[in-house]
Amino acid sequence: MSGRPASAHRRAIITLTTDFGLQDWYVAAMRGVVLEINPEAQIVDLSHQIPQGDIETAAFVLAQGRVTFPPDTIHVTVVDPGVGSQRKPIIARCDEHLYVGPDNGVFQRVFTHATHLKVFELTHLEYRRSTTSHTFHGRDIFAPAAAHCSLGVDLHQFGPSLEPETLAHPRGRQTCSSSATEGTIIYIDHYGNAITDIPGSFIEERSDWVGIVIEKHSAKIPIGKYYAQALPGNPIALVGSSSLLEISINGQSAATHYDLRVGDRCRILSRA
Amino acid sequence: MSGRPASAHRRAIITLTTDFGLQDWYVAAMRGVVLEINPEAQIVDLSHQIPQGDIETAAFVLAQGRVTFPPDTIHVTVVDPGVGSQRKPIIARCDEHLYVGPDNGVFQRVFTHATHLKVFELTHLEYRRSTTSHTFHGRDIFAPAAAHCSLGVDLHQFGPSLEPETLAHPRGRQTCSSSATEGTIIYIDHYGNAITDIPGSFIEERSDWVGIVIEKHSAKIPIGKYYAQALPGNPIALVGSSSLLEISINGQSAATHYDLRVGDRCRILSRA
Amino acid sequence: MSGRPASAHRRAIITLTTDFGLQDWYVAAMRGVVLEINPEAQIVDLSHQIPQGDIETAAFVLAQGRVTFPPDTIHVTVVDPGVGSQRKPIIARCDEHLYVGPDNGVFQRVFTHATHLKVFELTHLEYRRSTTSHTFHGRDIFAPAAAHCSLGVDLHQFGPSLEPETLAHPRGRQTCSSSATEGTIIYIDHYGNAITDIPGSFIEERSDWVGIVIEKHSAKIPIGKYYAQALPGNPIALVGSSSLLEISINGQSAATHYDLRVGDRCRILSRA
Repeated sequence: MSGRPASAHRRAIITLTTDFGLQDWYVAAMRGVVLEINPEAQIVDLSHQIPQGDIETAAFVLAQGRVTFPPDTIHVTVVDPGVGSQRKPIIARCDEHLYVGPDNGVFQRVFTHATHLKVFELTHLEYRRSTTSHTFHGRDIFAPAAAHCSLGVDLHQFGPSLEPETLAHPRGRQTCSSSATEGTIIYIDHYGNAITDIPGSFIEERSDWVGIVIEKHSAKIPIGKYYAQALPGNPIALVGSSSLLEISINGQSAATHYDLRVGDRCRILSRA
Repeated sequence: MSGRPASAHRRAIITLTTDFGLQDWYVAAMRGVVLEINPEAQIVDLSHQIPQGDIETAAFVLAQGRVTFPPDTIHVTVVDPGVGSQRKPIIARCDEHLYVGPDNGVFQRVFTHATHLKVFELTHLEYRRSTTSHTFHGRDIFAPAAAHCSLGVDLHQFGPSLEPETLAHPRGRQTCSSSATEGTIIYIDHYGNAITDIPGSFIEERSDWVGIVIEKHSAKIPIGKYYAQALPGNPIALVGSSSLLEISINGQSAATHYDLRVGDRCRILSRA
Repeated sequence: MSGRPASAHRRAIITLTTDFGLQDWYVAAMRGVVLEINPEAQIVDLSHQIPQGDIETAAFVLAQGRVTFPPDTIHVTVVDPGVGSQRKPIIARCDEHLYVGPDNGVFQRVFTHATHLKVFELTHLEYRRSTTSHTFHGRDIFAPAAAHCSLGVDLHQFGPSLEPETLAHPRGRQTCSSSATEGTIIYIDHYGNAITDIPGSFIEERSDWVGIVIEKHSAKIPIGKYYAQALPGNPIALVGSSSLLEISINGQSAATHYDLRVGDRCRILSRA
């Protein structure tokens, strides 16, 4: 009698992406709100260690982190330096998933090339906490909206339709479709791998790419397939799990070794 | 057919507040114990980054973190420098919630002004792990008690009734009812916001408060409503999500900028 | 009507032990994969802060962390510096629990003295993600295997039987059965307690042990029962929650105070 439970009983999944860190009770406050409204919700931490107020990093982490989640997952993103000001709280359906958070650009990477996108402002008071602070909309507006949405409330019930904001000058490419040989480091992970905006498909379709050059100090790094292909302590560039070209050192932090920062430029080298 | 599940099926919620950090297996050890006894328990991390042995900070984080949780939530708090010594393990019903942990003052802020409070010592061996260590009562006494409680065991079955201990000189005000114009910084959060013990209601009911002075270097900070009201890098004092006055800098750490510590004194300025 | 739910409805528990840290979306990516396959899985973080690529520490944390979990818990361990190379992905039943991860020694401590052990290579493509990267088998091979296993797939369906690898020179004792008076520090926890490989049973069965000497600077530390037995700031050695002798300072980090490292040697002192 083992087997996948009927989808009618599938518990709603709500992911959380914030810059709250894990020291305080702020993440738990959101979980309490969700569980009071929908005790069956599966709440998953996507990351709470987005650099404070860093909307672009949140946008990238969300765009990457959502990939493995099943249809109808609700992603709540609270990197919200403008909380309490004029930026609007929104809920959206974008292709197979749902998104809840501030309309400050944090959803730009998921919205940009959506096939299907509908965005609504979160205005209706019955889907908020009874008192709404000026400083913690994650608890007072976004968590309740996600929880009510997980119980089947239609998106248009939350408020009026809206055209979402976009970031003026977003960092790096917003999609994986381009084909230039120049790229930008857009994320540095826990291991010190520096993830660029160069799409993996662009690397894999040509066999004459032999390496990558970090422009600020002309370091040349060979292209390979997996970390342990390089000897311990040696560099390698490879198409990582995010399907983007990343710069690594086997067993060490490439970011520390090469002093890499988000925004640094790199270039692909061909054989000739 | 969407809708809130019947409360008969509501899964018990157990929150965890500790100074264990996240490096070791100690939190997971407690989760394993709970799930063996009640596989349906919803376990929520409130915080595991209480400074080591800091009972007063644990008391504050618990008092704040519990607020959004539904009735009958069980809060387990293990900041327990006296583990294995004479301090007693307790379980309590305090108004709508339940509390499990050492009787060392960690529950002082929630117990102080409770309408309804009953406290019991955890003595009965059948609700402990079969062997009880001298060093990890979180795993051996508190987690099993919370799990059995979540299955409906009555509190008086855990052991005899008890009058709880109180801290001799607790830091700051223990409640939000006072009305002096002087206050103390009682918590510094992940963003570097310095939370004082001055109740938000005291600020909001008078319009002639214009600022706050940090006594140790006489810095004067204007009172506002939300972070982004201040220009980036500028200070603002506001009633934060904890309904207490807090000192912030838009986009920076006020604690770092002003060298603020828990225990520092501040004073409200009136217009005159 | 309270009571333990029938075991037929017990939700499968899957623990995660990795060196991913908590900054990135990597842990969430694994959770998404598991929940898509088995929405009812209970996923528990054992630790994500294993030092990067440190297989021996992962082996120790797993061996300790699994202890409180009920039968049939599935432990996924992804400390995998050789990802993409020749090391094999495996699934195993070892006594009452199941294990999924790379065959690189990470399971050595649990496998070494198992009564019942069966290990299989994860080769069958239907239990992997549709595309498998060279760099993230946690997401593409191990998480799906654990999820399918939690739904009742028999282990031999995952691939051929296998004899697991062992570490050439593992650190410290692999079991708790030895009886020498010399030991090695094998783990330092969040509090700075230095856990040795000296079994607690060896300490408890003799009353003439009076202390422990750290060899590198001859510090002598008395043996006691619980932390608060020592005055604040004073050292004590005791049998900790892992049933191993550990070196502690009441209210401080013994590791910092004595400059203790994994691999440091110590020796038990008898009265004579």
